[in-house]
Amino acid sequence: MLIVAERINSSRKAIQEAVLSGDADTIQNEAKIQAEAGADYIDVNAGTFIREELERLQWIVEVVQDAVSLPLCIDSPDPKVIDGILPLLKKTPMINSITLEPSRLEPILPLAVAYKANVIALCQSPKGMADTADQKVAMAHELVEKAEKAGLPQDLLLVDPLVYPVSTSPLSAVAALDAIERIKEEIPGVHTICGLTNVSYGVPERKLINRTFLVAAIVRGLDSAILDPTDKKLFGSMKAALAVMGKDEYCLEFIEAYRAERIA
Amino acid sequence: MLIVAERINSSRKAIQEAVLSGDADTIQNEAKIQAEAGADYIDVNAGTFIREELERLQWIVEVVQDAVSLPLCIDSPDPKVIDGILPLLKKTPMINSITLEPSRLEPILPLAVAYKANVIALCQSPKGMADTADQKVAMAHELVEKAEKAGLPQDLLLVDPLVYPVSTSPLSAVAALDAIERIKEEIPGVHTICGLTNVSYGVPERKLINRTFLVAAIVRGLDSAILDPTDKKLFGSMKAALAVMGKDEYCLEFIEAYRAERIA
Repeated sequence: MLIVAERINSSRKAIQEAVLSGDADTIQNEAKIQAEAGADYIDVNAGTFIREELERLQWIVEVVQDAVSLPLCIDSPDPKVIDGILPLLKKTPMINSITLEPSRLEPILPLAVAYKANVIALCQSPKGMADTADQKVAMAHELVEKAEKAGLPQDLLLVDPLVYPVSTSPLSAVAALDAIERIKEEIPGVHTICGLTNVSYGVPERKLINRTFLVAAIVRGLDSAILDPTDKKLFGSMKAALAVMGKDEYCLEFIEAYRAERIA
Repeated sequence: MLIVAERINSSRKAIQEAVLSGDADTIQNEAKIQAEAGADYIDVNAGTFIREELERLQWIVEVVQDAVSLPLCIDSPDPKVIDGILPLLKKTPMINSITLEPSRLEPILPLAVAYKANVIALCQSPKGMADTADQKVAMAHELVEKAEKAGLPQDLLLVDPLVYPVSTSPLSAVAALDAIERIKEEIPGVHTICGLTNVSYGVPERKLINRTFLVAAIVRGLDSAILDPTDKKLFGSMKAALAVMGKDEYCLEFIEAYRAERIA
């Protein structure tokens, strides 16, 4: 299970304030606790800084790379920001994200190819987000096709089927789960990834819904997730799901995480 | 989701002591809290009382039926015990359980037919418990065939694929989950049920593994479970799984359970 750690995002107040005040310690601590908790990539997002996104993200990237040796995930819809960050990176990065919208696809693919970057590909087109499993799978095929045509092999793509809140779209999670399974079957080289927070919008006990959706997605074949690895309940559910699904032989990783007090 | 509530079992010390001392209040309280927590059937088990199982279970049944109006699930491998209990029951019961072993099949089926009882059918034969998904599915077919031949329609059967501890059999849970999905596909009239505690034997944080397995099983189509509905974390995971799987439209039942403080 590949984990993209989501805590360094300027939409979180503590991150916004640390960036504004140049408080490198806070940012570096966020990077370190996520690395220790099992992150594979550290996501970095400065999207709340309108017109300053690039320079703010440059500072974050510099600060994070001084603190941890993990590769980063550049989280921006703006090709100019991605273009400005890529040359600074010490490790082969991930780009978060492309869609089928020409402005979010065409300028980013050549950058990804040049840097051999992993790319998160959202099932979203100029007409909107994919709704049904059929639409999600069709968009996954189209994303893979366009990426391969640009020279990006499918095993560098992580397709996100996108999920709507179950409070308003009762069958949205099922559609995303069906899509995860079918994308894996139809395009075996590609990876699947999913954000977890959208599914629980408008429901109490949101974190319970989020981690239950993560377990369901792992059961259906999800191999990557964007999440907070320091959330011990979420991390515990993930490790338990991997044990149940036979992806943690003799529960050795589960027991190791338990002993390290990383699960609850 | 049909819930068979498991707390009235003499293998629990409090129950054993209450039965020995004739403490009806304790037994009745266990029945009431499970009924309030959402049980559909109250399981009753006096298996630790060797040679006294029937008389002890008769007392339990009498006491429970005075406290709650729910149907009971007679939990005994002994046809004589089942035969002795059935005439006492006020509601159409469930029998827990039959297997493909002749001694646990032939004397019980006619009783189930006579009382139109639901029957839990374990994927277990004279040669042992089913190991692979193929074996589990084959035994499910055989159980359904034998039940129908005896006059018991398949929609009264709840097939339990059985699950071994993931700590020693890494692929056992996957085999059980595959079987749940395939049994539903191949024998649509039949129900599936599963006990949850065996899967986590030998692992720390057993309850986390148990509730994760329950979520996985619901994702794969499980429609009934033997569990403790007063366990708020387990009950919460179950309700969250039903919401995620589109079986709780607009999360109304989840929100109701949250407001009633039945989930955590």
